[in-house]
Amino acid sequence: MYRTHTCGELRIENKNETVTLAGWVQTVRKFGAITFVDIRDRYGITQLLFGEELNKQLDENPLGREFVLQATGIVNERSNKNKNIATGDVEINIQSFKILNKSEVPPFTIQDDTDGGDDLRMKYRFLDLRRNAVKRNLELRYAVNRSARNYLHENNFMDIETPFLIKSTPEGARDFVVPSRMNAGQFYALPQSPQTFKQLLMVSGYDRYYQIVKCFRDEDLRADRQPEFTQIDCEMSFVEQEDILNMFEGLIKRIFKDVKGIDYTEKVERMSWEEAMWQYGNDKPDIRFGMKICNLKFPQYIFPTKENISSLIESEFAVFNDAETVVAIAVPGCSEYSRKQTDELIEWVKRPQIGMKGLAFIKCNNDGTYKSSFDKFFTEEKLKAIATAAHAQQGDLILILAGTEERTRKAMSELRLEMGKRLGLRKENEFKLLWVLDFPLFEFALEDQDGGGAGRWVARHHPFTSPKPSDIHIMINNNPKVEDLDKYLEHPYANIKANAYDMVLNGNEIGGGSIRIFQRELQEKMFAALGMDKEEYQHKFGFLLGAFEYGAPPHGGIAFGFDRLCSILGGSESIRDFIAFPKNNSGRDVMLDAPSEINTKQFDELQIKLNLK
Amino acid sequence: MYRTHTCGELRIENKNETVTLAGWVQTVRKFGAITFVDIRDRYGITQLLFGEELNKQLDENPLGREFVLQATGIVNERSNKNKNIATGDVEINIQSFKILNKSEVPPFTIQDDTDGGDDLRMKYRFLDLRRNAVKRNLELRYAVNRSARNYLHENNFMDIETPFLIKSTPEGARDFVVPSRMNAGQFYALPQSPQTFKQLLMVSGYDRYYQIVKCFRDEDLRADRQPEFTQIDCEMSFVEQEDILNMFEGLIKRIFKDVKGIDYTEKVERMSWEEAMWQYGNDKPDIRFGMKICNLKFPQYIFPTKENISSLIESEFAVFNDAETVVAIAVPGCSEYSRKQTDELIEWVKRPQIGMKGLAFIKCNNDGTYKSSFDKFFTEEKLKAIATAAHAQQGDLILILAGTEERTRKAMSELRLEMGKRLGLRKENEFKLLWVLDFPLFEFALEDQDGGGAGRWVARHHPFTSPKPSDIHIMINNNPKVEDLDKYLEHPYANIKANAYDMVLNGNEIGGGSIRIFQRELQEKMFAALGMDKEEYQHKFGFLLGAFEYGAPPHGGIAFGFDRLCSILGGSESIRDFIAFPKNNSGRDVMLDAPSEINTKQFDELQIKLNLK
Repeated sequence: MYRTHTCGELRIENKNETVTLAGWVQTVRKFGAITFVDIRDRYGITQLLFGEELNKQLDENPLGREFVLQATGIVNERSNKNKNIATGDVEINIQSFKILNKSEVPPFTIQDDTDGGDDLRMKYRFLDLRRNAVKRNLELRYAVNRSARNYLHENNFMDIETPFLIKSTPEGARDFVVPSRMNAGQFYALPQSPQTFKQLLMVSGYDRYYQIVKCFRDEDLRADRQPEFTQIDCEMSFVEQEDILNMFEGLIKRIFKDVKGIDYTEKVERMSWEEAMWQYGNDKPDIRFGMKICNLKFPQYIFPTKENISSLIESEFAVFNDAETVVAIAVPGCSEYSRKQTDELIEWVKRPQIGMKGLAFIKCNNDGTYKSSFDKFFTEEKLKAIATAAHAQQGDLILILAGTEERTRKAMSELRLEMGKRLGLRKENEFKLLWVLDFPLFEFALEDQDGGGAGRWVARHHPFTSPKPSDIHIMINNNPKVEDLDKYLEHPYANIKANAYDMVLNGNEIGGGSIRIFQRELQEKMFAALGMDKEEYQHKFGFLLGAFEYGAPPHGGIAFGFDRLCSILGGSESIRDFIAFPKNNSGRDVMLDAPSEINTKQFDELQIKLNLK
Repeated sequence: MYRTHTCGELRIENKNETVTLAGWVQTVRKFGAITFVDIRDRYGITQLLFGEELNKQLDENPLGREFVLQATGIVNERSNKNKNIATGDVEINIQSFKILNKSEVPPFTIQDDTDGGDDLRMKYRFLDLRRNAVKRNLELRYAVNRSARNYLHENNFMDIETPFLIKSTPEGARDFVVPSRMNAGQFYALPQSPQTFKQLLMVSGYDRYYQIVKCFRDEDLRADRQPEFTQIDCEMSFVEQEDILNMFEGLIKRIFKDVKGIDYTEKVERMSWEEAMWQYGNDKPDIRFGMKICNLKFPQYIFPTKENISSLIESEFAVFNDAETVVAIAVPGCSEYSRKQTDELIEWVKRPQIGMKGLAFIKCNNDGTYKSSFDKFFTEEKLKAIATAAHAQQGDLILILAGTEERTRKAMSELRLEMGKRLGLRKENEFKLLWVLDFPLFEFALEDQDGGGAGRWVARHHPFTSPKPSDIHIMINNNPKVEDLDKYLEHPYANIKANAYDMVLNGNEIGGGSIRIFQRELQEKMFAALGMDKEEYQHKFGFLLGAFEYGAPPHGGIAFGFDRLCSILGGSESIRDFIAFPKNNSGRDVMLDAPSEINTKQFDELQIKLNLK
């Protein structure tokens, strides 16, 4: 061993001990005949004192930043204690030292606030990983990993490894494929998730399975996506939805406790998908703050029997009258926004990312009066009625968007989040969990999404999700075919709800799952509903249908996005900061320079060749 | 929840409780008006009693093997207790039941001794996994996983995930490659091991890393190889070989304790590679028994100064005289083998798998006399001298093989293991660990192994293994070029020893590792010695060489073959029994029917096509 202690270990109690440390030179500070060197390792920083004699050796063998140093000396009490670091009471009076390895001057500083840009830090990721900020992220990641494993172990879950070289069954996202040399002309696929395997394990009787496992999707990348990502993947048998919700909110609470020291004792809130979409404008609401969306104009096919409050906005005002959807939020305490401030908000919603034509507002003044941007069409009484409907208080600013349903709802969701952020309501250290339930089983693909053709139903979650028991008859008794594409929302399939659930944390989906279909007939019906003929689903999923014939138990599960979960717990927007060796937006590892060309022998052995366009 | 208890949980203490169980029907036994059903889940088996009334319902809804059943009833004490199962004191007097799912008759019985052949069991792996024998294997695997993680965690190791989509650097085994859609014409490779990444993590200062991780090698498969396999992969900084040996024999001892309940308190034996090769005939000796190999003729280039005992076998006997190598073992207590028995041994060594031309023997009779199969060439005195050299006792049977060195040594190793097995010396429940040390750094490839050309040095472990410090000068001061291929053993490189170590358990290599090179210059020298020019090693490993310029610490590590370790602990020859979803010898998953064809769209997007011969 090159050391007796780590650089984070020595305390005043070690005074007068002879110790050997090894680590990286963080700083060298020369004061006349003596030199102070801060030496750093994974555990901390310790100050080394090189006295007069050793100083001469230092002159002959000068230390530079990031040199690897081994030094032996006696632990002394420091006269000038540093309360900011754990070893700050001591320093080591060095008696001998050895430079274990030299270092070039790093291309950026190894500090929390580094001067290195993204590209440089990715190319030299091995140096970036030395920075405390990155190290803390990986330590948090490991703590989450450890905590999850402990909880699942204590609850009788078994880690069972599923294969990585599997069968390509393109459905939804694209597979990465791997040419087989031994079976020329054929390909393996890398798993998008261990979904079918964990279901097979349930059929096999392993009633509580988990894995923290890499998954692969060949999709065009956005900033927060990686071609390979990690899931906490779980499945249980003999359970209903309620059992799964309880088990896995327990998991997240345990992680809060172990990793963040937070006792999350309150009940996890629950909300139907429909509530989420109408009250928050999206399916993963940030419920750290209210500001719920009030729908001033309900589409009749969603709320056919709901009391029609659309009359509130009936007027000569064409913007409201002609719009498919009119939605409002009451922003607390902002009634005194200046013209400049409201103009800025109007510009904000007009940006292409939001894409609205304008923004109407009502100021609910503290004196009880109302003032709107559309006063000439509305009496104050009418404004008051709208304010009441929107649950606005005196002092609030009501923001109103009107337009086509999907875009308007989405824009209002963004606006709500933006106002929450501006008002400091999205606190970094507050964590609010939410279950979103009762998702639709199907979505309608007006355009082709994955080569399965346009104008057909696609599985919102995946093809193994079971419908609500009460909705199974709708699925069985109706032909999935949609005759009039414009009216797909009126097809009975649009109303089938799934036994599916998402866990949302501070406005981010961190996990999702479902109770699965476990009967062959229903699974076949599902494949057929998705437009597969018997030959296709037998080819792709015959093994699962086969397994369902030999005593498949009722089962369900969930998968958490491990990278995302870590990034939220770490207070970061970017999952990349929580991955040791991430890829860039082109799917490249710039440090390795991968992917790269392969050689002729490899092509020959695999019996493939390039076919570049 | 479909159940209140598992099928392994109920005891006499639960008497009179109303419980609900769910599981699989193991057996149905009808006795007149009542029926006994054994219901099974992951945790055990419980006997259900269906009384007269429910029997009628059973007649209408008959249960079959492997049906999924939910049943509610009252816990009763059994009159006829079954001491063989944990729940054997009780039975459940069923009040109501529900068939949750039916099952076809399974293609083989779900029992320890199943009637299913290998192929059938692989095709229906989800049923095979229900068998107790297989379940115990996966439970053992999880226990090993858990134990290893706990030990490594307690010793400050951090689990850090390394990427799966990396760069192809064919060197040694073949890479599996993955065409990149976003970078058309380029390929990722799947990692053969996280070797370079864990070294980068050491450069980054994460001084204790581990991962239980899938690795991939596209090699022609033998019975005990899988294209994807799992490693316990570890690396440490600021350590010497001794530190690593101590840390990781600690790991294996902990696993013995946690998984097998064995206190392995004795010191782990150590042996040099040369000792292993000459005393046991291979580099992974089974030291549960002695029967060491005695070399009656030493090659002078290995033991140039050793006392020459070859004179012992000098005679007119051409078989010995003309042979490159003559080796003997003393088999204890077998001097009274009959002619039939010795003839059978002769046939055994003549089998093509062993490939020897014959077998000579000396019986060391209990009366002190000697009798050999080559009596006409040797006096009894000479036989006695050989027996002394071979450390034979009265009553032993000395077996002697003669021939070319490599084949003879290998054959004697096999014969020794066979005799050990026949004499019951390889006890299944005895575990003997061994470190094999001081491996040669290089092997000489007389034939091309991996496209790097013939007649060159290849790394015995891998190109990142450091030479023994005392041998570094041999590497630096000699040209690697071998002028006379027949005399490669006389080249100085043949004598360079590596800082490498293998852990051997009962004759199986379960782990191997090395202290790594951490200086750029030495690493470049190594690549050059392996026949790579600067362009090649810069292209393949430039990132690592670059990292070595920024303060690389001394480091080393080890990787354990997780599948193999589990199979040995489980007392099985086959790693496949310890993998949930293994592949067959053609690399196929017969359950999934993978690999398989991919579709035109996939080829188009990847811009590749088949080029079948």
